[in-house]
Amino acid sequence: MTIYDDHYLGGIEERVIRDTETARAAGAKVVGVYCAFTPKELIAAAGAIPVALCSGSDFPIPLAEQHLPRNLCALIKSSYGHAIGDSCPYFRATDLLIADATCDGKKKMFELLGRKRPLYLLQLPQTSATAESHAYWLGELRRIKVILEEETGTVITDDAIRKQIRLYNRLRTIVHEAFLLNTGPIPLLSGRELDTVTSVAGFELNLETRIAEITAALGEIKERDKDDDYIASVAGRPRILLTGCPTTNRKVLHLLEDCGGIVVAMESCGGLKTVGGLVPEQGDPLKNLAANYLSIPCACMTPNKARLDLLLAIIRDYRIDGVVELTWDGCHTYNVESFQVEECVQATGLPYLHVITDYSENDTGQLKTRIEAFLELLN
Amino acid sequence: MTIYDDHYLGGIEERVIRDTETARAAGAKVVGVYCAFTPKELIAAAGAIPVALCSGSDFPIPLAEQHLPRNLCALIKSSYGHAIGDSCPYFRATDLLIADATCDGKKKMFELLGRKRPLYLLQLPQTSATAESHAYWLGELRRIKVILEEETGTVITDDAIRKQIRLYNRLRTIVHEAFLLNTGPIPLLSGRELDTVTSVAGFELNLETRIAEITAALGEIKERDKDDDYIASVAGRPRILLTGCPTTNRKVLHLLEDCGGIVVAMESCGGLKTVGGLVPEQGDPLKNLAANYLSIPCACMTPNKARLDLLLAIIRDYRIDGVVELTWDGCHTYNVESFQVEECVQATGLPYLHVITDYSENDTGQLKTRIEAFLELLN
Repeated sequence: MTIYDDHYLGGIEERVIRDTETARAAGAKVVGVYCAFTPKELIAAAGAIPVALCSGSDFPIPLAEQHLPRNLCALIKSSYGHAIGDSCPYFRATDLLIADATCDGKKKMFELLGRKRPLYLLQLPQTSATAESHAYWLGELRRIKVILEEETGTVITDDAIRKQIRLYNRLRTIVHEAFLLNTGPIPLLSGRELDTVTSVAGFELNLETRIAEITAALGEIKERDKDDDYIASVAGRPRILLTGCPTTNRKVLHLLEDCGGIVVAMESCGGLKTVGGLVPEQGDPLKNLAANYLSIPCACMTPNKARLDLLLAIIRDYRIDGVVELTWDGCHTYNVESFQVEECVQATGLPYLHVITDYSENDTGQLKTRIEAFLELLN
Repeated sequence: MTIYDDHYLGGIEERVIRDTETARAAGAKVVGVYCAFTPKELIAAAGAIPVALCSGSDFPIPLAEQHLPRNLCALIKSSYGHAIGDSCPYFRATDLLIADATCDGKKKMFELLGRKRPLYLLQLPQTSATAESHAYWLGELRRIKVILEEETGTVITDDAIRKQIRLYNRLRTIVHEAFLLNTGPIPLLSGRELDTVTSVAGFELNLETRIAEITAALGEIKERDKDDDYIASVAGRPRILLTGCPTTNRKVLHLLEDCGGIVVAMESCGGLKTVGGLVPEQGDPLKNLAANYLSIPCACMTPNKARLDLLLAIIRDYRIDGVVELTWDGCHTYNVESFQVEECVQATGLPYLHVITDYSENDTGQLKTRIEAFLELLN
């Protein structure tokens, strides 16, 4: 199915860049964001264009290491290196940044990044378990709303937020639907395809078009369960749940599938960690946003039992054969939490593999050997 | 001056352990704490005995690495290894633990430590810059106060808190006085001695006695500026400010002085980072505690400009010749912040040395070479 190859995504990217240029010429601001905790609905409700800047490439890292410790995770260094090296067209287009105090590395990196662009930090509480943390977070969204109004010159009405909540809910729903196509006995998408079909890379504007594209793609994909060749191509491949750090760099995802596995579910930002729960469309829109976003079970939260519950649900619903946890080397939150994830997975009787790596290709051979051995275990 | 040697400290430790056993036999609870953010006044006001459990020894680390990533800092691994290996008499004596969500490594480690002891986590906001963060933190202290009341069966009155605030203020004041003896042209204490004289290691009870001991010691030390032998012994030694991670392990402190420097000031937990500001004794005692503790300029805070201001004040007041920053390898917050510290120090024209190490002795030779070269630069 060549429609979901690089050419396909490249076409979308070109269109989005063109649309963004038009919108910017008409005065729209571009707001860079780094984490799943930033409610893009608020940005869009101000008539601005959100763009996710978390980075997956290796090349800006040496530049970043001139300012940042080498033992920070690749994701943080890559994002920062792109920014200071002016090597990311998306960053270049930003007028301002909205970031979240998630992990230690990011929050301290943001202090330096603020020299490059106006940067507003959402003070994320470190738990979602208390009423006080929700009130605190709601206060942060109120503060950032005022900042967005000042920066864009647009009053953000409740109706405008509600409209964006509905739109982003539709996006979440269609992405979730893509994942759900893998709950049956025949997984209908590989992890690579899930990543491509569901990805909303770059500037987030004209989401209607993107939703329509994903819907059309899923329409075709649903036919696969009548396609004997397709069924034969996935038969017997171990069904993998990939969890852990954001799969900003695809090397582990690709290795898992190149070695014969099929990644039927991803519990990560942009995957099942963030698309499962919709923002309520009735009631105070800002409160609803606050409650939904604070509930994201990122390892930067303590406690983070919701992630274990989510993993158990995915293991059951997606007929998982084995769980692979990806930690970008230097990410303490996911790395420490992996101890509990391993316990949780092993209690289900499933094998668990913990991969700690970075964006370089240096360890590809070694990873391939480990992954092959793991997949063999599942057969 | 042999009075401040190990024998001296050993005697104090023996007495404190004896007193603690007596108090425990009479029903007092022992509450372990890990960070400077935990207001010990509250614990003491409940009639319980606070004990700091941050650890400086290397030997429990391999055990900790069975559960924790190897690339966490030595301080976290040592604390955890002591706890699960039952190798720390102070931990063994604890009835419960009060911890703070400071850095990623600690907060996630505490999730596992809670299996070993009842552990209550103070949800620290990641900034002290807003009224909301202060209100949130005050709420946390209120919550922990109720927990302490339940655990100890003691109602914590405002008067009891005020009494402890006054007592701990006296301790802070006398420790600060010890530091201030190093502001003159002749530094009256080495860093080693400051560490010994001011240290309140172990169980914190009968602080009156400890304050009297420190006061007596300082009385003797003040005579040094009339002692020609002493003056000759410190003449010409470069005056070092040691900053960064807590000096739980003394290897860098000792190396600096063994190589000819004199550490006249330490900007770290228990040092000038925490003793400079007193808790106001008038007004709502819990609010006063909250405001004082949240203002500690730890690198886990963002922004943390107060630390740079403090460093500049110390450089000026303590006639500093060079600044050494200690980072326990794996501590992202201090490590990333070191970029700004270096800028800040270099703007004053002073040399800056960043030492990243762990608790092992493996790099002693290499560190010695670097430190000698740095000290030579200062002469």
